[in-house]
Amino acid sequence: MARIRVGILGATGTVGQRFVQLLADHPQFAVTALAGSDRSQGRPYAEACAWRLSGEMPAAARSLVVREPEPPLDCDVVFSSLPADVAGPVETRFARAGYPVLSNSAAHRMDEQVPLLVPEVNPDHLALLDACGDGFIVTNPNCSTVMIALALAPLATRFGVEAVLVTTLQALSGAGYPGVASLDITDNVVPFIANEEEKIERETRKILGRLNGSRTEPAAFAVSAQCHRVNVVDGHLAAVRVKLGRPAEPAELRETLASFTALPQELRLPTAPAHPILVRDEPDRPQPRLDRDAGRGMSVTVGRIARDAVLGHRFVVLSHNTIRGAAGAAILNAELLLAKGYLRARD
Amino acid sequence: MARIRVGILGATGTVGQRFVQLLADHPQFAVTALAGSDRSQGRPYAEACAWRLSGEMPAAARSLVVREPEPPLDCDVVFSSLPADVAGPVETRFARAGYPVLSNSAAHRMDEQVPLLVPEVNPDHLALLDACGDGFIVTNPNCSTVMIALALAPLATRFGVEAVLVTTLQALSGAGYPGVASLDITDNVVPFIANEEEKIERETRKILGRLNGSRTEPAAFAVSAQCHRVNVVDGHLAAVRVKLGRPAEPAELRETLASFTALPQELRLPTAPAHPILVRDEPDRPQPRLDRDAGRGMSVTVGRIARDAVLGHRFVVLSHNTIRGAAGAAILNAELLLAKGYLRARD
Amino acid sequence: MARIRVGILGATGTVGQRFVQLLADHPQFAVTALAGSDRSQGRPYAEACAWRLSGEMPAAARSLVVREPEPPLDCDVVFSSLPADVAGPVETRFARAGYPVLSNSAAHRMDEQVPLLVPEVNPDHLALLDACGDGFIVTNPNCSTVMIALALAPLATRFGVEAVLVTTLQALSGAGYPGVASLDITDNVVPFIANEEEKIERETRKILGRLNGSRTEPAAFAVSAQCHRVNVVDGHLAAVRVKLGRPAEPAELRETLASFTALPQELRLPTAPAHPILVRDEPDRPQPRLDRDAGRGMSVTVGRIARDAVLGHRFVVLSHNTIRGAAGAAILNAELLLAKGYLRARD
Amino acid sequence: MARIRVGILGATGTVGQRFVQLLADHPQFAVTALAGSDRSQGRPYAEACAWRLSGEMPAAARSLVVREPEPPLDCDVVFSSLPADVAGPVETRFARAGYPVLSNSAAHRMDEQVPLLVPEVNPDHLALLDACGDGFIVTNPNCSTVMIALALAPLATRFGVEAVLVTTLQALSGAGYPGVASLDITDNVVPFIANEEEKIERETRKILGRLNGSRTEPAAFAVSAQCHRVNVVDGHLAAVRVKLGRPAEPAELRETLASFTALPQELRLPTAPAHPILVRDEPDRPQPRLDRDAGRGMSVTVGRIARDAVLGHRFVVLSHNTIRGAAGAAILNAELLLAKGYLRARD
Repeated sequence: MARIRVGILGATGTVGQRFVQLLADHPQFAVTALAGSDRSQGRPYAEACAWRLSGEMPAAARSLVVREPEPPLDCDVVFSSLPADVAGPVETRFARAGYPVLSNSAAHRMDEQVPLLVPEVNPDHLALLDACGDGFIVTNPNCSTVMIALALAPLATRFGVEAVLVTTLQALSGAGYPGVASLDITDNVVPFIANEEEKIERETRKILGRLNGSRTEPAAFAVSAQCHRVNVVDGHLAAVRVKLGRPAEPAELRETLASFTALPQELRLPTAPAHPILVRDEPDRPQPRLDRDAGRGMSVTVGRIARDAVLGHRFVVLSHNTIRGAAGAAILNAELLLAKGYLRARD
Repeated sequence: MARIRVGILGATGTVGQRFVQLLADHPQFAVTALAGSDRSQGRPYAEACAWRLSGEMPAAARSLVVREPEPPLDCDVVFSSLPADVAGPVETRFARAGYPVLSNSAAHRMDEQVPLLVPEVNPDHLALLDACGDGFIVTNPNCSTVMIALALAPLATRFGVEAVLVTTLQALSGAGYPGVASLDITDNVVPFIANEEEKIERETRKILGRLNGSRTEPAAFAVSAQCHRVNVVDGHLAAVRVKLGRPAEPAELRETLASFTALPQELRLPTAPAHPILVRDEPDRPQPRLDRDAGRGMSVTVGRIARDAVLGHRFVVLSHNTIRGAAGAAILNAELLLAKGYLRARD
Repeated sequence: MARIRVGILGATGTVGQRFVQLLADHPQFAVTALAGSDRSQGRPYAEACAWRLSGEMPAAARSLVVREPEPPLDCDVVFSSLPADVAGPVETRFARAGYPVLSNSAAHRMDEQVPLLVPEVNPDHLALLDACGDGFIVTNPNCSTVMIALALAPLATRFGVEAVLVTTLQALSGAGYPGVASLDITDNVVPFIANEEEKIERETRKILGRLNGSRTEPAAFAVSAQCHRVNVVDGHLAAVRVKLGRPAEPAELRETLASFTALPQELRLPTAPAHPILVRDEPDRPQPRLDRDAGRGMSVTVGRIARDAVLGHRFVVLSHNTIRGAAGAAILNAELLLAKGYLRARD
Repeated sequence: MARIRVGILGATGTVGQRFVQLLADHPQFAVTALAGSDRSQGRPYAEACAWRLSGEMPAAARSLVVREPEPPLDCDVVFSSLPADVAGPVETRFARAGYPVLSNSAAHRMDEQVPLLVPEVNPDHLALLDACGDGFIVTNPNCSTVMIALALAPLATRFGVEAVLVTTLQALSGAGYPGVASLDITDNVVPFIANEEEKIERETRKILGRLNGSRTEPAAFAVSAQCHRVNVVDGHLAAVRVKLGRPAEPAELRETLASFTALPQELRLPTAPAHPILVRDEPDRPQPRLDRDAGRGMSVTVGRIARDAVLGHRFVVLSHNTIRGAAGAAILNAELLLAKGYLRARD
């Protein structure tokens, strides 16, 4: 079967490089177009992109000439990791031109008709696309939100969720490149990430919300987020307190999280991890360096499940912010769309 | 006036070195005795102690021969930063031998008759000493608790506090030396510090509790703590949510915190900072490397005061964990004791 | 063909864990015995070992009970990563009991009858074993020396080497676990690694020396090493100046290094990288985080080849210190021994 | 006596902030003018400058309005820490307008008529100014060069120097702000700093060169430098090998370095440290975090003095790169100029 041809917008950035890396040997997708900013356009990717991931730039991408991020592009579907300030109108133009757009950008996440998708959590939200033609936008959440939504989903189903309070310790790669200055973070913590707290608070409620005709009703519970940048390369960690809808033993939470599987596992999507949530019982896990690569970066790891004196229960959750939290999330979204018949080769 | 002669137990450790440093030019105290573990005993401090603070070891301490940490010691008062596993009985023996003991150890903090003192917060708890003779123990809180108690105190007074939820990002020096292995914390976070969450939860309530005859009633509010070790040399940071007893504007919290002063400022105790709490209005402060030395390490810095969707209000607080969080705390306690007549030269 | 059964001495340490990881799917070797210190003996490896590498402990090793590091062990060959202070006599006892010992320890490296082997550099030194029976010791070099020897070997062959001067920036994992205290290395450099400078200076000369009957004559050139510990998890880097035996253009050095292959590549040993030396032409490479995993940790990377005002030529070389610099080196040695008929199954 | 009025060019940058900090309480100089880039001009320094040093911005500087870096400025002398690409012509214009310019920039360091001054090393080079009028340029060396020149000066005098080979490990603040991206240096080393090796090689020879009429003859010895960026906030370290002009015991080098004092100490210049060179005998010193603040950042620290197998002798040297290596160096230069009569109040 011919592979779906993929174009990547923002291909030279931190997340764009992850797209190129993760799609290098993908069984269903092949990268055929790369687009980037003015100064990279017209040059082969090998020249235009300062590759910063461990390992070599995939050979197939090296000779692709970087294009302007505007339709038409030589591809069937577009993955976007454009910067927030340009993503909005560009993605809209691609959708209007008939391209499915898998976006890692924040620009359209809260649009009523745009699914904010975590395939294990809210695949039913894809029904929002039924009113669309060939072109549409599907977004994945903010890099911190996805792990919170994943951990909450099975708890919400089994126990109900009444309030969620998260405090994040986020990795440097989440800020892109050059991103955080080394002088700002060496021997230091920065208790601020622009717009991040707001994104977590509203995106979590949309993902766990209910589809109501042509829009999603946000989940009824309150979400509180405080965000910090810490001196870690990859891997966001969040300390979570949750108020459940009914009493529960910590062991019940543990079992509910550890046994969670969902549609992507059932469909055996190529990028779906066997276990979307891994539970570790050591007292000092999860840790970014040791756990971020679990499930090839697509599993989130939960630990330290316990009672909480104020909200009832607590745990710590971790995921790889540029894989499950960005490029891998968009690819898994695309795999679900393909399995559900939303993607096809353009003529 | 002759200075009070001080003995330091655990003098070669991280906090012990801070005691030696901070007391080097103290107007009221003079270090006359140093005690430490077996392998340092009998040697001059200059030889026995691998000095790890910036700047040179104070000249006066260099030739003091390290003694066994047992009474009698050539001093009027004892500062203890002994390891948790030995501090309990040793400090008891010193108290029974008639020495006032200013302890940074956790061993006796929760003892009914032992004040757990933050001079700006609960100086009235010193009344617990009235039943004691010359020898007694006064403790300072855990390195994270002190800044939480300081920030809560004026809020409790003005608004009432109904619940407190803290998530800490703690510095390496809090674990002593050698403490945290570099392989455990480089490019990493460890979401676990042994016994720390329990200490914060119970000590905060004792400090903010009410004296009731010969014991303290813990404060009635619930405290939740989740603790993390991050790659920072000095300076603990905590993200705090607080449920107040009555509605309040964030600006009211700001004003209440920024204008707080208390007995140590009134008494002009030598180590008391002009402002126990500094409020910073930049969106990205406090930060450990920039703010830990505020007020010579004795001010705590608060920032990011805002509404919270779950508990009502939130802020971030930071303090120097080995100064206000340990050695400086004990010294300020001693200065208050001296001002109140609890300390005097032994014959 | 049945796999050679391997016992690992020091199996719970940093390098021991690398042995277990790298041998997990080896086509020629199977781990059948693990030995460690007193407190791990008698317990399954899964319990006795605090696994600190990324990824899970290999399943096959989990249930192996940790033994005392003394013969007999249930294996055909022994890999040793014992601490320096115990390795010497233990390895001797295994050799005398008829076991081939592949040692990463420094204890026997300079013994006259013991090959100090880098398979690409001095495979002829294995002739030292011809006088031995079944039991013998083969050592791999110190973690910094191996990359220096590899880079010098083709230069010595083509141009001659008259003096070598190296300055190292070494990773934390080289010190084992817990190894370097975080308080010693955060926001810091330590210009000292015990015995390291001496090891590099003498081991380099032995490896590049000439076999003379039953002993090796050290190479005639002088070696100078200054060693530093830096805040990097894995990957040793060395700045090298070299005085060659005849004039040479930097481009000739580049070509000589980049085209180097040797016996392990010819024999297609399983752990041999296609390119023992990779040359990078970017001005800012090699870098530990980006280049340490080249060739699955078995390639060394050279960059910044240029003229030097004092010694004539300079370059920078980097390798993964626990793979090519330790466990991988010993495994490659074992593969060469197997190919050359020095290893066989014990009855 | 009225203080000399100082203008600072590049006042909002990393070194500019150090100038403001170090001159805050200076007995001879008072900051009266600040100049910076387009986007800071016209705003009070408190607003225009994101202060990134520990401690508060000095009160006197807060209200100074940032000016364009062009003459005239309201000051008697100009300190320049302008970026390399603009410093050259701007400094020339100030000199031509009659201002003494104390420059930390590289632009004019190698100009024949411009002294490249280290007051302890080559105060006689100030004779180059004798042909100038009121306006002139005096430069201080590159941040790594100054400590090398200081350490070599007494060795050159006593033993002669025939070759010098340095390998640096340089701090982040040397690259200014935002400077090095955190993703480039966390868990990493970068073996490249643009133009740094060339600067060290040629500046060292000029400083230690001999005045010959109206120009300086560079010292005859060869200098080799390889430079690396490491994950340290402040404090450059260099591993040095030196070939001396005659045989010497390491103890003689030690004594020569430790006893070194020069003109600034004799003149008791306010910023001159009592000991320009501190020698430490511990095997693991100097270290950036422990030693960078020695002599309030103006002493360089030498350790690990030993024989070297290739060049004869070796040692390690460290200094604070933004104090002795930049702002403090320029201020000490100014103090010497003042003492020698080259500076005076403009009418």
